[in-house]
Amino acid sequence: MGKVICGICISVDGFVAGLNMTEDKPFGELPNIHQSLCKWLFGQADQHKHEIASLTSAGAFIMGRNMFGPSGTEYDTWEGWWGEEPPYHAPVFVLTHTARQNLALQGGTTFHFVTDGIQSALEKAKAVAGEKDIAIAGGANTVNQYLQAGLIDELWLHIVPVVVGQGKRLFEDVPPIDFEILEQSGTDLVTHIKYRIIK
Amino acid sequence: MGKVICGICISVDGFVAGLNMTEDKPFGELPNIHQSLCKWLFGQADQHKHEIASLTSAGAFIMGRNMFGPSGTEYDTWEGWWGEEPPYHAPVFVLTHTARQNLALQGGTTFHFVTDGIQSALEKAKAVAGEKDIAIAGGANTVNQYLQAGLIDELWLHIVPVVVGQGKRLFEDVPPIDFEILEQSGTDLVTHIKYRIIK
Repeated sequence: MGKVICGICISVDGFVAGLNMTEDKPFGELPNIHQSLCKWLFGQADQHKHEIASLTSAGAFIMGRNMFGPSGTEYDTWEGWWGEEPPYHAPVFVLTHTARQNLALQGGTTFHFVTDGIQSALEKAKAVAGEKDIAIAGGANTVNQYLQAGLIDELWLHIVPVVVGQGKRLFEDVPPIDFEILEQSGTDLVTHIKYRIIK
Repeated sequence: MGKVICGICISVDGFVAGLNMTEDKPFGELPNIHQSLCKWLFGQADQHKHEIASLTSAGAFIMGRNMFGPSGTEYDTWEGWWGEEPPYHAPVFVLTHTARQNLALQGGTTFHFVTDGIQSALEKAKAVAGEKDIAIAGGANTVNQYLQAGLIDELWLHIVPVVVGQGKRLFEDVPPIDFEILEQSGTDLVTHIKYRIIK
Protein backbone atom coordinates (compact mmCIF):
# COMPACT_ATOMS: atom_id res chain seq x y z
CA MET A 1 0.00 0.00 0.00
CA GLY A 2 1.36 3.42 -0.95
CA LYS A 3 1.42 6.50 1.24
CA VAL A 4 -1.04 9.39 1.26
CA ILE A 5 1.03 12.41 0.31
CA CYS A 6 0.31 16.07 -0.33
CA GLY A 7 2.72 18.31 -2.23
CA ILE A 8 1.72 21.96 -2.36
CA CYS A 9 3.18 25.38 -3.18
CA ILE A 10 2.87 27.84 -0.32
CA SER A 11 3.85 31.45 0.32
CA VAL A 12 6.07 32.30 3.29
CA ASP A 13 2.96 33.59 5.06
CA GLY A 14 1.08 30.34 4.56
CA PHE A 15 -1.21 30.87 1.58
CA VAL A 16 -1.59 28.32 -1.21
CA ALA A 17 -3.84 30.34 -3.54
CA GLY A 18 -5.24 33.80 -3.93
CA LEU A 19 -8.85 34.86 -3.75
CA ASN A 20 -11.31 35.29 -6.64
CA MET A 21 -10.32 32.33 -8.78
CA THR A 22 -11.53 32.57 -12.40
CA GLU A 23 -11.00 30.63 -15.63
CA ASP A 24 -8.06 32.88 -16.40
CA LYS A 25 -6.64 32.78 -12.89
CA PRO A 26 -6.60 29.23 -11.56
CA PHE A 27 -4.53 30.36 -8.56
CA GLY A 28 -6.77 33.36 -7.90
CA GLU A 29 -5.57 36.91 -7.48
CA LEU A 30 -2.22 37.41 -5.79
CA PRO A 31 -1.11 40.94 -5.05
CA ASN A 32 2.53 40.94 -5.97
CA ILE A 33 3.64 38.49 -8.64
CA HIS A 34 1.60 36.92 -11.40
CA GLN A 35 1.28 33.22 -10.58
CA SER A 36 4.21 33.58 -8.24
CA LEU A 37 3.44 30.36 -6.39
CA CYS A 38 4.32 28.16 -9.37
CA LYS A 39 7.02 30.26 -11.00
CA TRP A 40 9.67 27.68 -9.98
CA LEU A 41 7.55 24.87 -11.45
CA PHE A 42 7.39 26.40 -14.91
CA GLY A 43 10.60 28.43 -14.86
CA GLN A 44 13.03 25.88 -13.41
CA ALA A 45 11.55 22.54 -14.47
CA ASP A 46 15.01 21.07 -15.16
CA GLN A 47 16.26 21.89 -11.67
CA HIS A 48 13.20 20.39 -9.98
CA LYS A 49 12.68 17.12 -11.85
CA HIS A 50 12.59 15.15 -8.60
CA GLU A 51 9.91 17.35 -7.04
CA ILE A 52 7.82 17.55 -10.21
CA ALA A 53 7.98 13.77 -10.65
CA SER A 54 6.84 13.43 -7.03
CA LEU A 55 3.86 15.65 -7.74
CA THR A 56 2.72 13.67 -10.77
CA SER A 57 3.73 10.04 -10.13
CA ALA A 58 0.94 9.02 -7.76
CA GLY A 59 -1.36 6.11 -8.59
CA ALA A 60 -4.45 8.23 -7.88
CA PHE A 61 -5.20 11.86 -7.09
CA ILE A 62 -7.84 13.60 -4.97
CA MET A 63 -8.78 17.24 -5.43
CA GLY A 64 -11.45 19.68 -4.37
CA ARG A 65 -14.17 21.01 -6.63
CA ASN A 66 -12.48 24.43 -6.75
CA MET A 67 -9.21 22.94 -7.90
CA PHE A 68 -11.02 21.14 -10.72
CA GLY A 69 -12.80 24.28 -11.92
CA PRO A 70 -13.66 27.84 -10.91
CA SER A 71 -16.99 28.52 -9.28
CA GLY A 72 -19.61 29.85 -11.68
CA THR A 73 -18.30 27.79 -14.56
CA GLU A 74 -20.80 25.74 -16.48
CA TYR A 75 -20.11 22.61 -14.49
CA ASP A 76 -21.44 20.07 -17.02
CA THR A 77 -18.99 21.02 -19.75
CA TRP A 78 -15.88 22.16 -17.84
CA GLU A 79 -12.97 19.77 -18.44
CA GLY A 80 -10.36 21.13 -16.03
CA TRP A 81 -7.52 23.63 -16.37
CA TRP A 82 -5.08 21.21 -17.94
CA GLY A 83 -6.06 20.88 -21.61
CA GLU A 84 -6.64 17.67 -23.55
CA GLU A 85 -3.92 15.69 -21.78
CA PRO A 86 -3.74 16.57 -18.05
CA PRO A 87 -0.46 15.80 -16.24
CA TYR A 88 -1.99 13.20 -13.90
CA HIS A 89 -2.10 10.09 -16.13
CA ALA A 90 -4.13 8.34 -13.44
CA PRO A 91 -7.61 8.46 -11.88
CA VAL A 92 -8.44 11.78 -10.26
CA PHE A 93 -11.22 11.88 -7.66
CA VAL A 94 -12.94 15.27 -7.45
CA LEU A 95 -14.79 16.08 -4.22
CA THR A 96 -18.09 17.71 -5.14
CA HIS A 97 -21.69 18.07 -4.02
CA THR A 98 -23.03 17.57 -7.56
CA ALA A 99 -22.91 14.16 -9.23
CA ARG A 100 -21.48 13.95 -12.72
CA GLN A 101 -20.45 11.22 -15.20
CA ASN A 102 -16.77 10.25 -15.33
CA LEU A 103 -14.68 12.40 -17.63
CA ALA A 104 -11.94 10.48 -19.46
CA LEU A 105 -9.25 12.63 -21.11
CA GLN A 106 -6.09 11.70 -23.02
CA GLY A 107 -3.07 10.06 -21.43
CA GLY A 108 -4.89 8.04 -18.80
CA THR A 109 -6.42 10.83 -16.74
CA THR A 110 -10.03 10.11 -15.79
CA PHE A 111 -11.90 12.45 -13.46
CA HIS A 112 -14.32 10.72 -11.09
CA PHE A 113 -16.79 12.88 -9.17
CA VAL A 114 -17.27 11.84 -5.55
CA THR A 115 -20.27 13.17 -3.63
CA ASP A 116 -20.00 11.22 -0.38
CA GLY A 117 -17.02 12.82 1.31
CA ILE A 118 -13.28 12.63 1.87
CA GLN A 119 -13.19 9.15 3.43
CA SER A 120 -15.06 7.69 0.49
CA ALA A 121 -12.77 9.44 -2.00
CA LEU A 122 -9.71 8.08 -0.21
CA GLU A 123 -11.10 4.54 -0.25
CA LYS A 124 -11.83 4.82 -3.96
CA ALA A 125 -8.33 6.17 -4.60
CA LYS A 126 -6.70 3.37 -2.59
CA ALA A 127 -8.70 0.80 -4.53
CA VAL A 128 -7.14 1.90 -7.83
CA ALA A 129 -3.66 3.10 -6.75
CA GLY A 130 -2.22 -0.33 -6.03
CA GLU A 131 1.26 0.03 -4.56
CA LYS A 132 1.60 3.63 -5.67
CA ASP A 133 1.09 6.73 -3.51
CA ILE A 134 -2.16 8.64 -3.36
CA ALA A 135 -1.75 12.40 -3.81
CA ILE A 136 -4.03 14.96 -2.21
CA ALA A 137 -3.62 17.56 -4.93
CA GLY A 138 -5.37 20.55 -3.31
CA GLY A 139 -6.70 23.11 -2.82
CA ALA A 140 -6.40 24.45 0.70
CA ASN A 141 -9.85 23.39 1.90
CA THR A 142 -9.36 19.82 0.72
CA VAL A 143 -5.87 19.48 2.19
CA ASN A 144 -7.04 21.00 5.47
CA GLN A 145 -9.91 18.51 5.68
CA TYR A 146 -7.55 15.57 5.19
CA LEU A 147 -5.09 17.03 7.72
CA GLN A 148 -7.92 17.51 10.22
CA ALA A 149 -8.93 13.89 9.76
CA GLY A 150 -5.33 12.69 10.23
CA LEU A 151 -5.34 10.95 6.86
CA ILE A 152 -2.13 12.37 5.34
CA ASP A 153 1.24 10.61 5.80
CA GLU A 154 3.62 13.12 4.21
CA LEU A 155 3.37 16.84 3.48
CA TRP A 156 5.78 18.23 0.89
CA LEU A 157 5.89 22.00 1.07
CA HIS A 158 7.34 24.12 -1.72
CA ILE A 159 7.87 27.45 0.04
CA VAL A 160 7.89 30.34 -2.40
CA PRO A 161 9.74 33.54 -1.32
CA VAL A 162 6.78 35.90 -1.20
CA VAL A 163 4.39 37.30 1.39
CA VAL A 164 0.98 37.63 -0.27
CA GLY A 165 -1.14 38.74 2.69
CA GLN A 166 -4.43 37.17 1.65
CA GLY A 167 -5.88 34.07 0.03
CA LYS A 168 -6.56 30.47 0.94
CA ARG A 169 -4.59 29.53 4.04
CA LEU A 170 -3.12 26.08 4.64
CA PHE A 171 -3.50 24.66 8.19
CA GLU A 172 -6.65 26.68 8.94
CA ASP A 173 -8.56 24.90 11.74
CA VAL A 174 -6.03 22.05 11.64
CA PRO A 175 -5.14 20.63 15.09
CA PRO A 176 -1.49 20.59 16.28
CA ILE A 177 0.91 18.41 14.28
CA ASP A 178 4.46 17.26 14.95
CA PHE A 179 6.51 16.62 11.83
CA GLU A 180 9.68 14.69 11.09
CA ILE A 181 11.83 16.48 8.48
CA LEU A 182 12.64 13.94 5.74
CA GLU A 183 14.32 16.14 3.12
CA GLN A 184 15.09 19.83 2.53
CA SER A 185 16.55 21.51 -0.52
CA GLY A 186 15.98 24.50 -2.75
CA THR A 187 16.99 26.94 -5.44
CA ASP A 188 16.75 30.71 -5.73
CA LEU A 189 13.01 30.43 -6.44
CA VAL A 190 11.76 27.92 -3.87
CA THR A 191 12.57 25.94 -0.71
CA HIS A 192 11.42 22.33 -0.60
CA ILE A 193 10.73 20.63 2.74
CA LYS A 194 9.42 17.09 2.88
CA TYR A 195 7.70 16.35 6.21
CA ARG A 196 6.39 13.10 7.63
CA ILE A 197 3.43 13.58 9.97
CA ILE A 198 4.13 11.91 13.33
CA LYS A 199 1.00 10.05 14.42
CA MET B 1 26.20 51.21 8.24
CA GLY B 2 25.01 47.69 9.12
CA LYS B 3 21.80 46.06 7.96
CA VAL B 4 18.52 45.80 9.83
CA ILE B 5 17.95 42.09 10.29
CA CYS B 6 15.37 39.94 12.03
CA GLY B 7 15.99 36.30 12.92
CA ILE B 8 13.01 34.49 14.36
CA CYS B 9 11.80 30.95 15.10
CA ILE B 10 8.50 30.15 13.44
CA SER B 11 6.17 27.16 13.24
CA VAL B 12 5.22 25.72 9.85
CA ASP B 13 1.84 27.42 10.23
CA GLY B 14 3.38 30.82 10.84
CA PHE B 15 3.33 31.36 14.60
CA VAL B 16 6.31 32.72 16.54
CA ALA B 17 4.91 32.36 20.07
CA GLY B 18 1.96 30.89 21.88
CA LEU B 19 -0.73 32.73 23.79
CA ASN B 20 -0.82 33.47 27.53
CA MET B 21 2.81 34.33 28.14
CA THR B 22 3.85 34.16 31.81
CA GLU B 23 7.10 34.38 33.80
CA ASP B 24 7.44 30.61 33.48
CA LYS B 25 6.48 30.50 29.82
CA PRO B 26 8.28 33.20 27.85
CA PHE B 27 7.05 31.70 24.59
CA GLY B 28 3.49 31.34 25.85
CA GLU B 29 1.44 28.19 25.71
CA LEU B 30 1.95 25.92 22.75
CA PRO B 31 -0.29 22.91 22.40
CA ASN B 32 2.07 20.15 21.36
CA ILE B 33 5.68 20.46 22.47
CA HIS B 34 7.08 22.36 25.43
CA GLN B 35 9.09 25.27 24.03
CA SER B 36 9.18 23.51 20.70
CA LEU B 37 10.07 26.64 18.80
CA CYS B 38 13.54 26.86 20.32
CA LYS B 39 14.31 23.16 20.80
CA TRP B 40 16.95 23.32 18.05
CA LEU B 41 18.55 26.37 19.68
CA PHE B 42 19.15 24.63 22.99
CA GLY B 43 19.37 21.04 21.82
CA GLN B 44 21.66 21.42 18.80
CA ALA B 45 23.76 24.47 19.65
CA ASP B 46 26.90 22.93 18.15
CA GLN B 47 25.22 22.30 14.80
CA HIS B 48 23.83 25.83 14.59
CA LYS B 49 26.77 28.00 15.66
CA HIS B 50 26.47 30.14 12.53
CA GLU B 51 22.77 30.86 13.08
CA ILE B 52 23.15 31.45 16.82
CA ALA B 53 26.07 33.81 16.23
CA SER B 54 23.91 35.66 13.72
CA LEU B 55 21.19 36.06 16.33
CA THR B 56 23.52 37.51 18.97
CA SER B 57 26.23 39.43 17.08
CA ALA B 58 24.32 42.61 16.28
CA GLY B 59 25.56 45.98 17.46
CA ALA B 60 22.14 46.87 18.90
CA PHE B 61 18.84 45.08 19.44
CA ILE B 62 15.21 46.21 19.41
CA MET B 63 12.42 44.27 21.10
CA GLY B 64 8.82 44.72 22.12
CA ARG B 65 7.63 45.19 25.67
CA ASN B 66 6.19 41.67 25.72
CA MET B 67 9.49 40.14 24.70
CA PHE B 68 11.21 41.96 27.54
CA GLY B 69 8.72 40.78 30.15
CA PRO B 70 5.30 39.19 30.55
CA SER B 71 2.29 41.41 31.04
CA GLY B 72 1.23 41.74 34.65
CA THR B 73 4.80 41.61 35.90
CA GLU B 74 5.88 44.29 38.31
CA TYR B 75 7.41 46.40 35.59
CA ASP B 76 9.75 48.47 37.77
CA THR B 77 11.75 45.50 39.02
CA TRP B 78 11.59 43.00 36.15
CA GLU B 79 15.05 42.46 34.64
CA GLY B 80 14.20 40.27 31.64
CA TRP B 81 14.12 36.52 31.09
CA TRP B 82 17.86 36.11 30.59
CA GLY B 83 19.40 36.17 34.07
CA GLU B 84 22.32 38.32 35.23
CA GLU B 85 24.20 38.19 31.93
CA PRO B 86 21.82 38.31 28.95
CA PRO B 87 23.13 36.99 25.60
CA TYR B 88 22.98 40.35 23.84
CA HIS B 89 26.21 42.04 25.02
CA ALA B 90 25.04 45.28 23.40
CA PRO B 91 22.39 47.97 23.88
CA VAL B 92 18.81 46.65 23.71
CA PHE B 93 16.01 49.11 22.95
CA VAL B 94 12.67 48.05 24.42
CA LEU B 95 9.53 49.53 22.85
CA THR B 96 7.15 50.51 25.66
CA HIS B 97 4.49 53.01 26.61
CA THR B 98 5.93 53.47 30.11
CA ALA B 99 9.19 55.33 30.66
CA ARG B 100 11.85 53.67 32.80
CA GLN B 101 15.51 54.25 33.70
CA ASN B 102 18.14 52.32 31.75
CA LEU B 103 18.87 48.86 33.11
CA ALA B 104 22.55 47.84 32.84
CA LEU B 105 23.25 44.13 33.35
CA GLN B 106 26.48 42.14 33.15
CA GLY B 107 28.38 41.51 29.94
CA GLY B 108 27.53 44.76 28.20
CA THR B 109 23.76 44.40 27.88
CA THR B 110 21.93 47.61 28.73
CA PHE B 111 18.18 47.86 28.26
CA HIS B 112 16.94 51.27 27.10
CA PHE B 113 13.21 51.95 27.24
CA VAL B 114 11.87 53.84 24.22
CA THR B 115 8.45 55.46 24.44
CA ASP B 116 8.30 57.36 21.14
CA GLY B 117 7.87 54.60 18.61
CA ILE B 118 9.65 52.24 16.23
CA GLN B 119 11.32 54.91 14.06
CA SER B 120 12.86 56.52 17.12
CA ALA B 121 14.06 53.16 18.46
CA LEU B 122 15.70 52.38 15.11
CA GLU B 123 17.45 55.75 15.02
CA LYS B 124 18.77 55.23 18.55
CA ALA B 125 19.94 51.72 17.64
CA LYS B 126 21.72 52.96 14.49
CA ALA B 127 23.44 55.65 16.52
CA VAL B 128 25.14 53.06 18.74
CA ALA B 129 25.56 50.08 16.37
CA GLY B 130 28.34 51.56 14.28
CA GLU B 131 29.14 49.25 11.36
CA LYS B 132 27.35 46.30 12.95
CA ASP B 133 23.86 45.04 12.12
CA ILE B 134 20.77 46.02 14.07
CA ALA B 135 18.61 43.07 15.11
CA ILE B 136 14.84 43.27 15.50
CA ALA B 137 14.60 40.59 18.17
CA GLY B 138 10.81 40.16 18.40
CA GLY B 139 8.11 39.45 19.24
CA ALA B 140 5.56 39.13 16.46
CA ASN B 141 3.92 42.54 16.95
CA THR B 142 7.25 44.35 16.87
CA VAL B 143 8.54 42.50 13.81
CA ASN B 144 5.24 43.04 12.02
CA GLN B 145 5.39 46.78 12.72
CA TYR B 146 8.90 47.02 11.26
CA LEU B 147 7.86 44.90 8.24
CA GLN B 148 4.82 47.12 7.69
CA ALA B 149 7.07 50.18 7.76
CA GLY B 150 9.51 48.61 5.26
CA LEU B 151 12.41 49.01 7.68
CA ILE B 152 13.84 45.46 7.67
CA ASP B 153 16.56 44.44 5.17
CA GLU B 154 16.84 40.70 5.89
CA LEU B 155 14.50 38.17 7.47
CA TRP B 156 16.07 34.96 8.75
CA LEU B 157 13.40 32.35 9.41
CA HIS B 158 14.08 29.27 11.51
CA ILE B 159 11.15 27.04 10.54
CA VAL B 160 10.37 24.49 13.23
CA PRO B 161 8.57 21.28 12.14
CA VAL B 162 5.34 21.75 14.08
CA VAL B 163 1.84 23.04 13.44
CA VAL B 164 0.68 24.82 16.60
CA GLY B 165 -2.67 26.22 15.46
CA GLN B 166 -2.74 29.33 17.61
CA GLY B 167 -0.52 32.07 18.97
CA LYS B 168 1.16 35.22 17.72
CA ARG B 169 1.28 35.19 13.93
CA LEU B 170 4.14 36.64 11.91
CA PHE B 171 3.15 38.71 8.82
CA GLU B 172 -0.26 39.69 10.23
CA ASP B 173 -1.40 42.87 8.44
CA VAL B 174 1.93 43.03 6.62
CA PRO B 175 1.64 44.17 2.97
CA PRO B 176 2.96 41.95 0.13
CA ILE B 177 6.71 41.31 0.08
CA ASP B 178 9.00 39.76 -2.52
CA PHE B 179 12.07 38.06 -1.11
CA GLU B 180 15.41 37.00 -2.52
CA ILE B 181 16.60 33.70 -1.02
CA LEU B 182 20.15 34.23 0.29
CA GLU B 183 20.79 30.96 2.14
CA GLN B 184 18.94 27.79 3.08
CA SER B 185 20.04 24.92 5.28
CA GLY B 186 18.78 22.76 8.12
CA THR B 187 18.97 19.76 10.42
CA ASP B 188 16.36 17.31 11.64
CA LEU B 189 14.99 19.95 14.06
CA VAL B 190 14.80 23.11 11.94
CA THR B 191 15.00 24.62 8.46
CA HIS B 192 16.88 27.90 8.11
CA ILE B 193 16.02 30.30 5.28
CA LYS B 194 17.73 33.66 5.00
CA TYR B 195 15.69 36.12 2.93
CA ARG B 196 16.57 39.57 1.65
CA ILE B 197 13.54 41.84 1.29
CA ILE B 198 13.37 43.27 -2.24
CA LYS B 199 12.49 46.95 -2.02
